[in-house]
Amino acid sequence: MMRHIVLLQWTETATDQQKREAETAFHNLPARIPEILDFFGGSDRGLTGGAHDFAAVFTFADVEGWRAYQDHEAHKALVADHLKPILAGRAVIQFDD
Amino acid sequence: MMRHIVLLQWTETATDQQKREAETAFHNLPARIPEILDFFGGSDRGLTGGAHDFAAVFTFADVEGWRAYQDHEAHKALVADHLKPILAGRAVIQFDD
Repeated sequence: MMRHIVLLQWTETATDQQKREAETAFHNLPARIPEILDFFGGSDRGLTGGAHDFAAVFTFADVEGWRAYQDHEAHKALVADHLKPILAGRAVIQFDD
Repeated sequence: MMRHIVLLQWTETATDQQKREAETAFHNLPARIPEILDFFGGSDRGLTGGAHDFAAVFTFADVEGWRAYQDHEAHKALVADHLKPILAGRAVIQFDD
């Protein structure tokens, strides 16, 4: 299996609605992209200073599955429509598990 | 459930041995800290420019479990002995799932 984790920081001006729509769009991806074997994610609880705002944790069978996700229209639409407008920072990693 | 995710970047001078020892120390935590209900983690595969080097994904029953982890001697020793010497960056989040 391969894991893909992205932690996101929203801009100061991002509205609650924009954040909710971005987070919902993430949760809708598995239904659109069959290579996503598992997904979980959520918004920061505010327990740690300087934490990121949202986490998305994906599981793929292998790197080919991850590449199919990267190239998929639904992923590209998520990035263009929901992330770019309100993204301030992003931490990412892919690893075998 | 509550998830705690930390993505770490190692310093340029970190040796492979130091990295391996830090990553092994993470994998040894669940045996020492019963509040950790699940753990997975791994080293970056080098697929994405600017990715973090290591990810640790913890699951706790609730915030009390997370606090017990934060205060536990084994966690404190991991930070002092294995992370501080080679840590260049850290992204963190806690969220309900």
